[in-house]
Amino acid sequence: MTDALPQAGTVVVACCQLAPVLADPAANRELAAGAVAQAAASGASVILLPELLSSGYVFESPAEAQASAEATDGETITLWQRLSAEHHAVIVGGFCEKADGGPYNSAALIDHGELRCVYRKAHLWDAERLWFTPGDAAPPLVPTEVGLLSVMICYDLEFPEWVRLPALAGAQLLCAPVNWPAAPASRHPDGERAAEVIRVQADAGVNRMFIAACDRTGTERGVDWVAGSIVVDPDGWLLAEAPHAEATILAECRLVDALDKRVAALSDIHADRRPELYRQVASPAQTS
Amino acid sequence: MTDALPQAGTVVVACCQLAPVLADPAANRELAAGAVAQAAASGASVILLPELLSSGYVFESPAEAQASAEATDGETITLWQRLSAEHHAVIVGGFCEKADGGPYNSAALIDHGELRCVYRKAHLWDAERLWFTPGDAAPPLVPTEVGLLSVMICYDLEFPEWVRLPALAGAQLLCAPVNWPAAPASRHPDGERAAEVIRVQADAGVNRMFIAACDRTGTERGVDWVAGSIVVDPDGWLLAEAPHAEATILAECRLVDALDKRVAALSDIHADRRPELYRQVASPAQTS
Repeated sequence: MTDALPQAGTVVVACCQLAPVLADPAANRELAAGAVAQAAASGASVILLPELLSSGYVFESPAEAQASAEATDGETITLWQRLSAEHHAVIVGGFCEKADGGPYNSAALIDHGELRCVYRKAHLWDAERLWFTPGDAAPPLVPTEVGLLSVMICYDLEFPEWVRLPALAGAQLLCAPVNWPAAPASRHPDGERAAEVIRVQADAGVNRMFIAACDRTGTERGVDWVAGSIVVDPDGWLLAEAPHAEATILAECRLVDALDKRVAALSDIHADRRPELYRQVASPAQTS
Repeated sequence: MTDALPQAGTVVVACCQLAPVLADPAANRELAAGAVAQAAASGASVILLPELLSSGYVFESPAEAQASAEATDGETITLWQRLSAEHHAVIVGGFCEKADGGPYNSAALIDHGELRCVYRKAHLWDAERLWFTPGDAAPPLVPTEVGLLSVMICYDLEFPEWVRLPALAGAQLLCAPVNWPAAPASRHPDGERAAEVIRVQADAGVNRMFIAACDRTGTERGVDWVAGSIVVDPDGWLLAEAPHAEATILAECRLVDALDKRVAALSDIHADRRPELYRQVASPAQTS
């Protein structure tokens, strides 16, 4: 385990927006190997891969999910460890995890070859609840050479209480593998970013924390995707944004910026919270 | 008190983006009277006014705030009650409240002439803490003929836990008087909406609730404003957006839409919360 404290300077964060092949872990390992090598060659030292990259997403039965699941000592995580060691990088990627009580929709964080944590998605989206067991553990905090990292997955980002947990504990960069299904046109006005992107911008801004979200692409069983990978700064602005295609995006992040929660001379976006009030239940106003 | 349950159909919500005159409550009452009459003539039955419309915002001492403060039986609220009765409308506006332990940065909700609640801002921005006492009460829930309304003020919107309270209690429209100070150009990329607007979009979307935020305009003691009044729907999209000027924006809102929290066949954005997990404190990941 690396005990290094966060350091000054910038780190290049990459999101590899890939098109996984459903139920073909071997093919998906090849995708990862190529993308990680390319991102590392571009200078990235934190490299994200999409949610459920090992397996694809659009299952139709628990048996399908189970058949694609791999344990943490399986070939996928073993390969990612080798890639992480070879490229001196942190890799955060989503995989279909075989384990007691599972399968789980999980993400691994691997640092210089060492598996530092496995996070299991706590908020399961739509039909995921039919094949996955939800995780119960808070998003992990992983101290690394580049700073304090955390991990969550896709729909987790829509629960601001969940994002608060690592943010309040000092996470500088939240790494989020996602598979954002494209919204129907009727729910997405022309010219607007995806709603999921806007929520990540808000998550970052109200916590002054960097967030990288690595999405997927490639139609799967008729499902299309936002293909909206982003890296967002602590003000909530986009440092990098993917096109609607396979692509690797890169952003230089000065992670120490996330340690400063001041938003005005006397305002600190975390210290200004009033948690003792948040346990109230709103009730009808007293009439005058 | 109106005990009517929320009804189907749409309601026109107006935000009157005004330029208050610092320390001149009489002038500001005239502004309100003109704007409310115009909004009502345009069909609005919920009419928002900015934060601290009675007094202006940029105080330089507690004495200044105290000098502009008015009790709820003072001329400002009395006028707003008369306007509300005359125009058969709900008015939600911000005022500098004189009361025991105050002054407070408050907002009144008046329904057909009746003062239904006074909400006191709980999260004070920057120098506000030098002249105002923060409120401790949760955002109110106010049943009206058009639906269940709630109220908060400006910086409160940057605390997702606070927005959750009325949303979880069934609020359909959150009415927020705001005074959003303009960000320095270095913290606002060209072509982007204000960060505050993006956060309101996220607040609305993760709760499937309408939010109207009524901003101000008019430079005051050198401070400029976003002048970014908006009405946002439960998907987080903008139904109306103000220009950088004095303006009244109008949006037709079908408030029953906020009663349906489904976001996919098996997903409900409120029921999918896992509050029992949100009491955790994130801690360093176990190493493998």
